[in-house]
Amino acid sequence: MHKKLFIPGPVDVREDVLQQMTKPMIGHRTKDASALQRRISEKLQKVFYTNEEILLSTSSGSGLMEGAIRSCTRKRAAVFSVGAFGDRWYEMAVANNVPADKFSVEQGKATTAEMVDEVLSTGKYDLITVTHNETSSGVMNPVEEISEVMKKYPEVIWCLDTVSSMAGTKIEVDKLGVDICITSTQKCIGLPPGMAIASMSKKAVEAAKEVPYRGVYLDLLALYDYIQKKDYQYPSTPALSLMYALDYQLDRILEEGLENRYARHLEMAQYVREWAKKNFELFPEERYASNTLTTIKNTRNIDVSALNKALGERGFTISNGYGKLKDKTFRISHMADYTLDEVKSLIAAIDDILGL
Amino acid sequence: MHKKLFIPGPVDVREDVLQQMTKPMIGHRTKDASALQRRISEKLQKVFYTNEEILLSTSSGSGLMEGAIRSCTRKRAAVFSVGAFGDRWYEMAVANNVPADKFSVEQGKATTAEMVDEVLSTGKYDLITVTHNETSSGVMNPVEEISEVMKKYPEVIWCLDTVSSMAGTKIEVDKLGVDICITSTQKCIGLPPGMAIASMSKKAVEAAKEVPYRGVYLDLLALYDYIQKKDYQYPSTPALSLMYALDYQLDRILEEGLENRYARHLEMAQYVREWAKKNFELFPEERYASNTLTTIKNTRNIDVSALNKALGERGFTISNGYGKLKDKTFRISHMADYTLDEVKSLIAAIDDILGL
Repeated sequence: MHKKLFIPGPVDVREDVLQQMTKPMIGHRTKDASALQRRISEKLQKVFYTNEEILLSTSSGSGLMEGAIRSCTRKRAAVFSVGAFGDRWYEMAVANNVPADKFSVEQGKATTAEMVDEVLSTGKYDLITVTHNETSSGVMNPVEEISEVMKKYPEVIWCLDTVSSMAGTKIEVDKLGVDICITSTQKCIGLPPGMAIASMSKKAVEAAKEVPYRGVYLDLLALYDYIQKKDYQYPSTPALSLMYALDYQLDRILEEGLENRYARHLEMAQYVREWAKKNFELFPEERYASNTLTTIKNTRNIDVSALNKALGERGFTISNGYGKLKDKTFRISHMADYTLDEVKSLIAAIDDILGL
Repeated sequence: MHKKLFIPGPVDVREDVLQQMTKPMIGHRTKDASALQRRISEKLQKVFYTNEEILLSTSSGSGLMEGAIRSCTRKRAAVFSVGAFGDRWYEMAVANNVPADKFSVEQGKATTAEMVDEVLSTGKYDLITVTHNETSSGVMNPVEEISEVMKKYPEVIWCLDTVSSMAGTKIEVDKLGVDICITSTQKCIGLPPGMAIASMSKKAVEAAKEVPYRGVYLDLLALYDYIQKKDYQYPSTPALSLMYALDYQLDRILEEGLENRYARHLEMAQYVREWAKKNFELFPEERYASNTLTTIKNTRNIDVSALNKALGERGFTISNGYGKLKDKTFRISHMADYTLDEVKSLIAAIDDILGL
């Protein structure tokens, strides 16, 4: 029996979307391939609220995160971490010999505008990375407030990890002033894993030109330049099947309407949060609680693995806490094409199993 | 109308194989995910004739080529190039600040054992890269002869690009002594693009441990370590749909029988070569002619684009020459699941169009 995945990615993908991946191959150096990538880019510009170029990468979101910090840090990067995925960005800097410092907060807290301001006021940094939605703690950072502060530092490149939030909540890339905004297919976009997506501002393009060793495959400038020179083609052979599915799914997303999609995500989040507050506690500060997944403090000390096993027998699966938060928290995601009714069925099953 | 792709990847994928990609998602941190990757690895060990570990990467073959030269060059790499894809390996070294020298031959010639011996006898290099099958020139390098020479240099890591040959012709990785053998899904394996595959010897693992800055996403040691620590899982979210298709297609390949598969490839190659010799000329030296694609010297000065357009109307497509070889050569690939009858239909169509 297939278990419905209420985990923070991969998410369940609709049958008609999966079916797109059975379309026959085309040459990746044809006009059809250019048209496919251009179509996808134009639709993604709407989802990202950007006029900047959209880069596609046959990699996971981690691939483009690494590419971003390596390609665009000229002097030193400030990595703001609120959990596992912020920490990962710092590890990427270290592994690439990119000078960087990490600024962490206690798990469950957010990166605040004040923190960013304080760090950047030192003048030491020319790039920052921020996790928009941290899937370990369930924190959604206040990017609007950070955006206000960033206006004071026009020379600093802003990289934002929206892997688990883009298309699930409104992120107006150009208005916020985000230079490199990264997501991947298997979260709120509602596709299988295998492709990462980023917007890249002209400021980031200029920054990358100053960095001598950017590698090749994950070099954002190489992806950008290839689009310009080869009319929306990809330097190597891209994951065509996923591109077919992405092209189709973006139509579905735009047909639903972005505002409707965000409202649906928020409705599911609010339902899970209210349930969590009634029966457990929210792990993050409530004002920073994510709209795409909820991390719940295991105040009843339930056996999360046993719960998940029992849920499995009913066709559902949720996530245990991530890393050090295992068993101390558990996570319910509500992203992509799930509906409030499906979330209600899951919660009803949990209530029944736990006798709540 | 779909045009049958006689280009050197992506190749046409069988309907039943494509259908595998419609299977529902599973969590990538589950026992099912481990079992899937372990199954794939065991089958790939047969295709690679290796007992070493198999690494999967959500990237193109280029991704793992870059990972290999960056992860395992301690001192200096010798890059043997017979065309565009050898040159690409050198560019990857340069872009990662990996010390390297390139040893090129005229297009159409091969990397010989003597060349490798002469270069390595200087003692300057601890890693070499060789292109097994160069899709620009249609040269298949004499890896058995190179293997004999490599026995004299046990400290040198051997990286082999078999992107367009693995599963189409016999490459006995362990017997040859190849340390890192790289391929990808969209060539002779007969799947859509989106995943790269490599074997990694223990010698290469030890070499990588000495290299300080290997990055993260394309770091071969990180992929290797994760398999050991997490029981055949992948550090980030892998391209699950392609893994489903790979799992299935490897069964098909092993059912056909590897020797039968190589014989079928050779039979198709010989048919195209004989036709080419009768009507044009082979571009590579015949003893080094590839078994998976044929590069043909355009001795009749035909208009390759016009030919391809006319072929398109009949449901076929072939490739023009690559880079500088455009119009001077053209290429017919015969790899993956194509049959001799299909190749004959293509050749008959070309004969008819050109009045041969």
